[in-house]
Amino acid sequence: MRSTGEVVSIGNELLIGQTLDTNSNWIAKQLNKNGWTLQRVTLLRDSLTAISQGVKEVIKRQPALLITIGGLGPTHDDMTLKGVANALHKPLVVNSQALTMIEARYERMAVPVHLTRYRKKMAMLPKGGNPLPNPVGTAPGVLVRTGHTMIVSLPGVPEEMKAIFKTSILPILRKSSKPTPTEAYVRLVGIIESALAPVLKDAQQKFPGLYFKSHPKGRETGVRSLIQLHIYTVGEKDKTRISQAVAYVLDRLSGSQSPS
Amino acid sequence: MRSTGEVVSIGNELLIGQTLDTNSNWIAKQLNKNGWTLQRVTLLRDSLTAISQGVKEVIKRQPALLITIGGLGPTHDDMTLKGVANALHKPLVVNSQALTMIEARYERMAVPVHLTRYRKKMAMLPKGGNPLPNPVGTAPGVLVRTGHTMIVSLPGVPEEMKAIFKTSILPILRKSSKPTPTEAYVRLVGIIESALAPVLKDAQQKFPGLYFKSHPKGRETGVRSLIQLHIYTVGEKDKTRISQAVAYVLDRLSGSQSPS
Repeated sequence: MRSTGEVVSIGNELLIGQTLDTNSNWIAKQLNKNGWTLQRVTLLRDSLTAISQGVKEVIKRQPALLITIGGLGPTHDDMTLKGVANALHKPLVVNSQALTMIEARYERMAVPVHLTRYRKKMAMLPKGGNPLPNPVGTAPGVLVRTGHTMIVSLPGVPEEMKAIFKTSILPILRKSSKPTPTEAYVRLVGIIESALAPVLKDAQQKFPGLYFKSHPKGRETGVRSLIQLHIYTVGEKDKTRISQAVAYVLDRLSGSQSPS
Repeated sequence: MRSTGEVVSIGNELLIGQTLDTNSNWIAKQLNKNGWTLQRVTLLRDSLTAISQGVKEVIKRQPALLITIGGLGPTHDDMTLKGVANALHKPLVVNSQALTMIEARYERMAVPVHLTRYRKKMAMLPKGGNPLPNPVGTAPGVLVRTGHTMIVSLPGVPEEMKAIFKTSILPILRKSSKPTPTEAYVRLVGIIESALAPVLKDAQQKFPGLYFKSHPKGRETGVRSLIQLHIYTVGEKDKTRISQAVAYVLDRLSGSQSPS
């Protein structure tokens, strides 16, 4: 199992800028921390065509994991599972396990409610899919496999998304993950990015397997400029190489403060 | 010109969760405010293959506008323009206008600097592209057209991204935009989402052209639940229909507080 993943985050509110997609960012951190490489995040509108097309494209790229976020609720614009089902050429069918979870949820509620077709909708899963218990909400998550890809659908409400991920997904990811990444941050004051560029290029060649990424935090004014340099690696335990890389960069910069 | 757009946001920092992609969210708001429909946002790693492949896919969908964010700087991992050029099957060539902008920028700096190849790199544009002045940084933005799509490449530093967008892009978008969207937010207390679902379905049929989107803000507990209902339209000036839709939903809900 290659430890690569993609996220598809669904909702018009994301694409009109009403909601900032903090969900994907949280998933990104979780995957990274557990040795997984997130290759791509796609934000899509509440459109059945957009969702099924977007999911199809991901499946073609064959990541080990696809996490969809949002669109699992009871309303007319919640159509993620239908989109996933269409992408897999599978029908949506009532899943009895999911129905039991939803019924149990409504039974625990303060106001007794009937299981309308809008509520049953949350138990309609792509055929072959399994519901994932939602410890803090109603709509269960869904897990369905296709080829080498495990597709996990989570609700968009952050606390529900996180709860299902931690309970049902994290244990699976940990089993097949590589070591956690090691990293270092270096703050470079008074160095402009274009002067840093040749040093990083050499460092990249000298330390294959490490990533060197500069984040300018101020303007390129030459004097008061600030760069945050992030040196990191994925799947490597040797922290000494990170330290060596930091030392190398600082040494090169102190040796030639005037831009070459 | 159809007023549809896509955003491609580039940087490993986004996909390891180190940085929250507030840039795309800002662009989404700008497009929405000016009558444009953002169809999709894609977050990609600093990989030449990923970028050129991602840009190619967008071009195939023929949006009127593609905005790429990030990867315009002088360092080895800044490869957006090479990726765009590859997607368009065009070479990267030195643009004399861009070179003049960059030279002028360095001349104004506190510390005099030479125009190294890392700095010249920022003046290498896809053939046929035009540089967009960067009022607050070094790397110019880039505009290049292909088919019906205008591709705009902006730097990832938020203040530079915003400055170039406002100066060079917003005036173009306004020329070809539809009216700004009209909208209403309604806070529904004590209504659970699955009880709202059938009402919204009917409302959707009754008011074609309006969007009804419910955002649960609390847990589905039945008693203290809170839903933010967002009713909006794009390209329609008739605000009375929004009010009618709000009235319709509230009327339906007050008529049947007990879930049907």
